Amino acid sequence: MIRAGIVGASGYTGAELMRILSLHPEMEVTVATANRYQGECIGALYPSLDRFYPGVFKAYEPEAIDEGCDVVFLGLPHGESMKALPELASMEKKVVDLSADLRFDDPDEYERWYGEEHACPGLSGKAVYGLTEVYRDRVAAAGLVANPGCYPTGALLGLIPAAEAGYIAGTVVVDAKSGISGAGRKATPATHFPQASENVAPYAVSGHRHMPEITSGLEKVSGKPVAIVFAPHLVPMSRGILCTMYVPLGTSTGAGEIRDSYQEFYRGERFVRVLEEGAYPQTKAVQGSNNCHIAVEVTGEGRMLVVMSAIDNLVKGASGQAVQNMNLMCGLPEWMGLESPGLFP
Amino acid sequence: MIRAGIVGASGYTGAELMRILSLHPEMEVTVATANRYQGECIGALYPSLDRFYPGVFKAYEPEAIDEGCDVVFLGLPHGESMKALPELASMEKKVVDLSADLRFDDPDEYERWYGEEHACPGLSGKAVYGLTEVYRDRVAAAGLVANPGCYPTGALLGLIPAAEAGYIAGTVVVDAKSGISGAGRKATPATHFPQASENVAPYAVSGHRHMPEITSGLEKVSGKPVAIVFAPHLVPMSRGILCTMYVPLGTSTGAGEIRDSYQEFYRGERFVRVLEEGAYPQTKAVQGSNNCHIAVEVTGEGRMLVVMSAIDNLVKGASGQAVQNMNLMCGLPEWMGLESPGLFP
Amino acid sequence: MIRAGIVGASGYTGAELMRILSLHPEMEVTVATANRYQGECIGALYPSLDRFYPGVFKAYEPEAIDEGCDVVFLGLPHGESMKALPELASMEKKVVDLSADLRFDDPDEYERWYGEEHACPGLSGKAVYGLTEVYRDRVAAAGLVANPGCYPTGALLGLIPAAEAGYIAGTVVVDAKSGISGAGRKATPATHFPQASENVAPYAVSGHRHMPEITSGLEKVSGKPVAIVFAPHLVPMSRGILCTMYVPLGTSTGAGEIRDSYQEFYRGERFVRVLEEGAYPQTKAVQGSNNCHIAVEVTGEGRMLVVMSAIDNLVKGASGQAVQNMNLMCGLPEWMGLESPGLFP
Amino acid sequence: MIRAGIVGASGYTGAELMRILSLHPEMEVTVATANRYQGECIGALYPSLDRFYPGVFKAYEPEAIDEGCDVVFLGLPHGESMKALPELASMEKKVVDLSADLRFDDPDEYERWYGEEHACPGLSGKAVYGLTEVYRDRVAAAGLVANPGCYPTGALLGLIPAAEAGYIAGTVVVDAKSGISGAGRKATPATHFPQASENVAPYAVSGHRHMPEITSGLEKVSGKPVAIVFAPHLVPMSRGILCTMYVPLGTSTGAGEIRDSYQEFYRGERFVRVLEEGAYPQTKAVQGSNNCHIAVEVTGEGRMLVVMSAIDNLVKGASGQAVQNMNLMCGLPEWMGLESPGLFP
Repeated sequence: MIRAGIVGASGYTGAELMRILSLHPEMEVTVATANRYQGECIGALYPSLDRFYPGVFKAYEPEAIDEGCDVVFLGLPHGESMKALPELASMEKKVVDLSADLRFDDPDEYERWYGEEHACPGLSGKAVYGLTEVYRDRVAAAGLVANPGCYPTGALLGLIPAAEAGYIAGTVVVDAKSGISGAGRKATPATHFPQASENVAPYAVSGHRHMPEITSGLEKVSGKPVAIVFAPHLVPMSRGILCTMYVPLGTSTGAGEIRDSYQEFYRGERFVRVLEEGAYPQTKAVQGSNNCHIAVEVTGEGRMLVVMSAIDNLVKGASGQAVQNMNLMCGLPEWMGLESPGLFP
Repeated sequence: MIRAGIVGASGYTGAELMRILSLHPEMEVTVATANRYQGECIGALYPSLDRFYPGVFKAYEPEAIDEGCDVVFLGLPHGESMKALPELASMEKKVVDLSADLRFDDPDEYERWYGEEHACPGLSGKAVYGLTEVYRDRVAAAGLVANPGCYPTGALLGLIPAAEAGYIAGTVVVDAKSGISGAGRKATPATHFPQASENVAPYAVSGHRHMPEITSGLEKVSGKPVAIVFAPHLVPMSRGILCTMYVPLGTSTGAGEIRDSYQEFYRGERFVRVLEEGAYPQTKAVQGSNNCHIAVEVTGEGRMLVVMSAIDNLVKGASGQAVQNMNLMCGLPEWMGLESPGLFP
Repeated sequence: MIRAGIVGASGYTGAELMRILSLHPEMEVTVATANRYQGECIGALYPSLDRFYPGVFKAYEPEAIDEGCDVVFLGLPHGESMKALPELASMEKKVVDLSADLRFDDPDEYERWYGEEHACPGLSGKAVYGLTEVYRDRVAAAGLVANPGCYPTGALLGLIPAAEAGYIAGTVVVDAKSGISGAGRKATPATHFPQASENVAPYAVSGHRHMPEITSGLEKVSGKPVAIVFAPHLVPMSRGILCTMYVPLGTSTGAGEIRDSYQEFYRGERFVRVLEEGAYPQTKAVQGSNNCHIAVEVTGEGRMLVVMSAIDNLVKGASGQAVQNMNLMCGLPEWMGLESPGLFP
Repeated sequence: MIRAGIVGASGYTGAELMRILSLHPEMEVTVATANRYQGECIGALYPSLDRFYPGVFKAYEPEAIDEGCDVVFLGLPHGESMKALPELASMEKKVVDLSADLRFDDPDEYERWYGEEHACPGLSGKAVYGLTEVYRDRVAAAGLVANPGCYPTGALLGLIPAAEAGYIAGTVVVDAKSGISGAGRKATPATHFPQASENVAPYAVSGHRHMPEITSGLEKVSGKPVAIVFAPHLVPMSRGILCTMYVPLGTSTGAGEIRDSYQEFYRGERFVRVLEEGAYPQTKAVQGSNNCHIAVEVTGEGRMLVVMSAIDNLVKGASGQAVQNMNLMCGLPEWMGLESPGLFP
């Protein structure tokens, strides 16, 4: 068994890593740290995990990680992750960082969007961006992976085939609808049930931090500048992200042709499915799974491609993709421990 | 008291008319018809209305309407409404039709989108389109009003100021998120709780019937063709529509300037509010009220205007606006019976 | 117009008082205090109220209350309310206190359940318990009213007719299901949307503070000890309390006879409705209204009376009943400003 | 691999069987029948299963079952199941019937509660009641198992330890709160999202069909008559049942003593967990899992035991327990394919 450490295990992505790895035949969690909850039972915070993790959260101690783990998942918030990274990198263990800290090649870009100096700029360009289906080979060879954000995962899986095929001929609108677990485990006024239920609310329309991540993800593939408008919304559900994306087409193109190119792009993929004509993705169909459902449609008299993608923000948008990446990094089949259908209804 | 008849009173818009009119100081419901539920207690279908409407649903009989009502609200489904309209029109009563049947000036347009011959093409161009804030004077003079659809109300209130100011310089994307009461009172697989909860799902992306209504509403104001892409989504809440609208700008324009023009456009309006910088509309803030909240933001390096509007689909998007229109038609203050804050939380 | 002050106006009960009073023809809010939010726009906290309350929250200053208000609603948390009460009482204004501080005649009872010394024990027995339908005459003559808790309102309206008729012949089980607004406006781990959605959770089963309030409410009416078991639960909705109550019957009694006695008890009441055989209360039928729906059924071979009651916890369970009481205290019709149907769906 | 047939696979329990068995290392679904959907893709009804079940629903043909399956799960509705049972029984395959048709030993009891003649009274007493933790040995030896109802599973797991210990000294109240998937896959007015959301509603309080199943389940263990009052409620969530159960105690007994006896009763069980003092079960903690969480508390001055249990109605309350039973019947470890934590949040 590969021994995995989770540094920053008390948040939703940490708990989701524990849930997924409890089902993994070749990997097990040997250390779960959470400074704030050290000594508290894992099952007290997450009763769903109680039977599977009878132990307690530990304080973060590098030696314990070094000795007790073969690989490390970093579930710390952005800004904290990069403080732990240099030490972990020096241990020469495979690391998947779920925070935003290494997602930009250029540390200046990080500083511009996250408003603080980068603590380990030297590592910035060294991490492989872990959008598995796109960078599979690089991930497999990596020692350090920057796991993509939840919104960028949904958006890029939906847009990259269009970018590669050269369909994008204007500003791309990404209208994203997210379940509230995306805001994290901490209770805030915006996530208070009486506020969030029976409500749809946009936020951060002109400057969400996931926007440059989407932009740079597209530009890398298309090799030229891409303009993105990104508007996230909170909707009253726990899990799931639906991205509805509007791509101006240079020439009038049929949906069938585009759908074919998408199906070709994702041929053989286990986790990404391009739906047939007439079917639409819905977040509940992928709830609890590492799957991504994508549909394409052309409207506006043949001049606007609408791409819709659905993922579970905590699985394919975070911890599931992290395990998928780690599997590759460890030479295991990429789907190991991740082969479960969504929970429906 | 003005005596109001509701023809087709058993659906959600009919029940909402009854709720609103129970609070109206100058109008009361004297006849509520529902052929399917004739003889059944109103309170059996809608226990919330029990005390206010101790009577039963009646079968539709023109004479009863003619004798017992001064004004008529038509809450029948599209296709059925137009069968009753000629007879009602002949009674020379003021009529607000909440169906889609008279929303197009051109009956051919109706036939194209609704797939059936128009039963009273002669009335098509005679009805005033009841988007109150825009067509107030014409509504006040009208005998017959076609009440706008729920999506078009949210979209047009958000876009018309931009159209009038000449801001629209490309295809407008309307990404709409609707509560499930918009699908009506009838239980269907898509509205089944276990299917609809914890779910966001797009539908009818390339051809929803509200799309041409939005297009023609904009073209009337701007006096030239406008291209619209309209993608509706179901979100897990009962009431509310949030429209997020993306308007390409011809020249880079500041959000402040646009916000000013919106605030000028809606100056003095009781039901439409243009939010200050930094505030976003949310459906829960208008739940149960006739209010519409609008915010504008500019992104994409000054080239994309994002307009967001929130309404309650059953109030401003249907029955509230219908009463607002009828008030005007009857010479009453437009806000009579509609002055209540949203129900929050 | 009667000028009303709301001391502690930023919580949900304060906001609900503002919502209700915006519709009141004879009472208006002239001062709304909230020390924590002083100077902030009311509409910033509650966008639904924006147009109706364009002003700001004020700091609590006794003189401003004394000069600017004829009557006072106290919306402060328990423990804080009793600190303000002596001063307010000295102003000789009519006061409705929505906190728990004066609900017990005996200050020792307060101290036992709330774990702190009572700050104004002298006032404890002086307040009238404001369960309007039961204590209407005393409320009308009162200067100071202790507004009942939300759970006790639902439970006592359902049980008092049984107590008065002498039906109670054993320990009464009160199983209560509450919407999450009952926990207040403050975000906590238990009210975080991802925790509270898709979840039903009991809490405080052996010692909720509303239990002695229910017990003493029943004992006053029945004139003898009553044993209560009270189990509250959080369910994933914003508003509403459903109490299901199990009353052992001394002798086998038919549901019809009991239903008759309930209907007799509440004959002529505007806000309480005893449902016919076969109908059940549901919280959504009273959402946003001051109504209480009650059903009775007998099961267990004629030996167990099941009483079910539904209220909106923020209206009949708090602010609506507070206004109902204040109407009586001011000599106004009790229903003034409260005559609206529930918001359904 | 053991080849499993699912007869009546299009409902929620059928879909859940497919979901669970897709993860089972020793059992696979070879035939899934649904007469109503024959020829339709499984993934069209359940997009979450698409990748795992690329085939179609088949019409029910006994020969196909006989040849293609080693074991059979019957997911037909009550009344239909018993029509297929004699033929399936004659095939001498192991069968788990998820319907109510064989849950009563006495076919007259079935007829009394389900209002129709029993189609195979000879099989009635032959099926083993599949409450696994209680009847494990009998299940392991059985060829035909009647899988318990969802409410009875939650109620009996919570009450049987009390019954066995002789704690029950009066009428037991079972107040159950169920997610709406319990009503099945068919859309009805009661399960329509706008009706069911933001709502709690009791139903069938004096005569739900699961009541006699709970009663007889308790009487078998305690060996004497037990009186039950059973009140089910719909709450706005998809999955989960919380039972709150009130057991009058003959003598004042401490919660600690009772908790100890419960922990002893369930010692070594993988799927049932008795919580420590101060912890409460919640449905979300077991969502998607075969787990049952139980807490006990004593109140009412030591005279009332309150037992709370939480299960996922579709897993431990239906398909999960069915697989648990089939595992035993096939000589496999009972937990095979069922070892996953709940999906939280």
